[in-house]
Amino acid sequence: MKKAILIICDGLGDRPIEALGNRTPLQAAETPNLDKLAQRGISGAMNTVDIGVRPGSDTAHLALFGYDPHVYYNGRGPFETAGIGMEMKKGDICFRANVGTVDKDLVVIDRRAGRIESTQEIVEALNGTKIDGVEFILKKGVGHRLGFIMRGQGLSPNIIDSDPHKENVKIHTPHAKDDSKEAMFTAAVLEKFLDKAHKVMSKLPLNLEREKKGLPLANYILVRGAGITPNLLSFKEKYNLDAVCIAGGGLYKGIGRMVGMDTPNVEGATGKPDSDLTKKVEMILKQYDKYNFFFVHFKGADSLGEDGDYEGKKEYIEKIDKAIAPLLDLKDALIVITADHSTPCALKAHSADDVPVVMSGYGIRDDDVEHFNERECARGRLGHIRGAHLMPLILDMMGLAELFGA
Amino acid sequence: MKKAILIICDGLGDRPIEALGNRTPLQAAETPNLDKLAQRGISGAMNTVDIGVRPGSDTAHLALFGYDPHVYYNGRGPFETAGIGMEMKKGDICFRANVGTVDKDLVVIDRRAGRIESTQEIVEALNGTKIDGVEFILKKGVGHRLGFIMRGQGLSPNIIDSDPHKENVKIHTPHAKDDSKEAMFTAAVLEKFLDKAHKVMSKLPLNLEREKKGLPLANYILVRGAGITPNLLSFKEKYNLDAVCIAGGGLYKGIGRMVGMDTPNVEGATGKPDSDLTKKVEMILKQYDKYNFFFVHFKGADSLGEDGDYEGKKEYIEKIDKAIAPLLDLKDALIVITADHSTPCALKAHSADDVPVVMSGYGIRDDDVEHFNERECARGRLGHIRGAHLMPLILDMMGLAELFGA
Repeated sequence: MKKAILIICDGLGDRPIEALGNRTPLQAAETPNLDKLAQRGISGAMNTVDIGVRPGSDTAHLALFGYDPHVYYNGRGPFETAGIGMEMKKGDICFRANVGTVDKDLVVIDRRAGRIESTQEIVEALNGTKIDGVEFILKKGVGHRLGFIMRGQGLSPNIIDSDPHKENVKIHTPHAKDDSKEAMFTAAVLEKFLDKAHKVMSKLPLNLEREKKGLPLANYILVRGAGITPNLLSFKEKYNLDAVCIAGGGLYKGIGRMVGMDTPNVEGATGKPDSDLTKKVEMILKQYDKYNFFFVHFKGADSLGEDGDYEGKKEYIEKIDKAIAPLLDLKDALIVITADHSTPCALKAHSADDVPVVMSGYGIRDDDVEHFNERECARGRLGHIRGAHLMPLILDMMGLAELFGA
Repeated sequence: MKKAILIICDGLGDRPIEALGNRTPLQAAETPNLDKLAQRGISGAMNTVDIGVRPGSDTAHLALFGYDPHVYYNGRGPFETAGIGMEMKKGDICFRANVGTVDKDLVVIDRRAGRIESTQEIVEALNGTKIDGVEFILKKGVGHRLGFIMRGQGLSPNIIDSDPHKENVKIHTPHAKDDSKEAMFTAAVLEKFLDKAHKVMSKLPLNLEREKKGLPLANYILVRGAGITPNLLSFKEKYNLDAVCIAGGGLYKGIGRMVGMDTPNVEGATGKPDSDLTKKVEMILKQYDKYNFFFVHFKGADSLGEDGDYEGKKEYIEKIDKAIAPLLDLKDALIVITADHSTPCALKAHSADDVPVVMSGYGIRDDDVEHFNERECARGRLGHIRGAHLMPLILDMMGLAELFGA
């Protein structure tokens, strides 16, 4: 196998749903192409992090790519900032941030400032602020969201969120989670910045206008999920693979960038259920000679699972099945289809249920699995694996695994 | 079970081969005796080191015997020197070595000195040399190969190979891989020895004669794979088993010796596909009262896999099947058949593909597996195990496992 195509169908796994005849959306869907891959290859059940662990998309993807999330994950912040394309440096403390509304007593009235979209004026007013040698770097994200980075010496991610995560309570004053001087310094500088930002924001023309219109003021930055930029080896360094990330969602492109993958823009890829999946498959074929590892991310099944929309999830899976048809003709490619976690429609949230995985290609082993779904794959020959096994298996099937011993 | 017979069929596992009807050599072979063992016993799939890890024969055997290769394996050297029956002491630095040919600028002309066979004169001239308190111990191996040991205080295996692993480049001057004084001392002493050996070898009568005949001079010792002799508990100490190693290949006898097994010579056992396997089985029966653990090694399937000779591999497997027939009558023996790794004919190299394992005997559990092969065993009741599980399972089936708790 000269190439590997790893397709992650986010949130694909599910639980049996009565309205689908006690089948999961994947079992209920018509998936002739996925089934063909299962017939040609070996299947299994996989827990991306570990049995009984309910992974986030971020930790699950780290694990699937071979970076132990217990080592490399220390908060969502760096994944958000990477996801919106911010340049990050080793040691940066990164946050998820919202533009929100507080009253004069700093009680949170609206965590999203009326779902404000136009935050560019705020970013321009605050980006580059320096306090006590620490630089604050801001970038507009989707809607009310900002990317937020603290850059400087002696910083620690070990501080609590200023975001109280609910409304009608006072914002949390940043403070350290441990008694290190780094954490205390970080909390103190962050507090100074948030105070200053509140004052600056309150006077922006944007807010004078919002006040006139009766809209919630965009007058506070709520930060959460502090994390330090992890120092990840790139796919080239770690596996000697030339890797490309074909994704719409910012988080996935961000993770791709963090591990040194190229992240071309795919026209029509929205990171939502309406995403044009055929365009992603076309991108694989267009770039086929340039790379030997293709990470393809399909987001929709997760969003539909979180909406509890099992019919929509089933239809989306059928859309995946149609989109991947051209890949079945590639004779020199190992095709791996799996998920980062389950998102059962009944839960409307991620679960720890294992996910199906199939590894398919000419000349590799096969087994008796006929259909690609949670239940049949669990009987497959790969057995029950962890996400950490996936890249070693892929490298071995590509003939690239290093010999341990002689 | 009073006895355990562990038969390792080196490189047995394979991938489906079109010319064999998309079957592996093991699937294609007629193996009534192996199948009978599968019917009587419990089967499984095994990764000797771990899922996705492509093991060498050395690391795989360590793992199968219950010695974690991540702890005990630090280079091939000690396995080579043990394999040719050299006496080794704790702390010895052992190497693989070739007698090779260099020109006057120390450029390697022939890594094997024209595949020289008669190296005894070289060994006699150099064995026992002492430099800076370090003794150099040499022994003739097969063909151009030597066993090579450095013995003394303050040595480290952390030095690069003098062997450049290719021809028409200069030999590598030994140097340290780390900045420890042990590694630097070892490299310095080794360099002195190799210089001296070059001078001594150049003047040997052997080389005057080779020069006359126009043969490549045997004038340099190329060393590689430095490793320190691991301090392994013997089978007696670790498991309280009286163990014997019935093997032809030097490496396997060497590993047997490293773990304190007796290693009788088996007439007709060559370590090659032409080896007389029935003689090995006869040896088990002849020594049946003397031991309670028999490690039997069949090498051929690995060599044939590395040649890509799937027909030969299939026939060799049928030879194994015939040879083991007498074992099926042993009522008090647990018979375990497995492999150290897969050597797919299509790859002509080791792979990380799991290997079949069967544990068979009167009174132990059984399952539904009818045929001993990669695909059926993977459906067996042992599930998907690691090499590290094998000895504990064997001890338990022998009734020798220690109780954990009360």
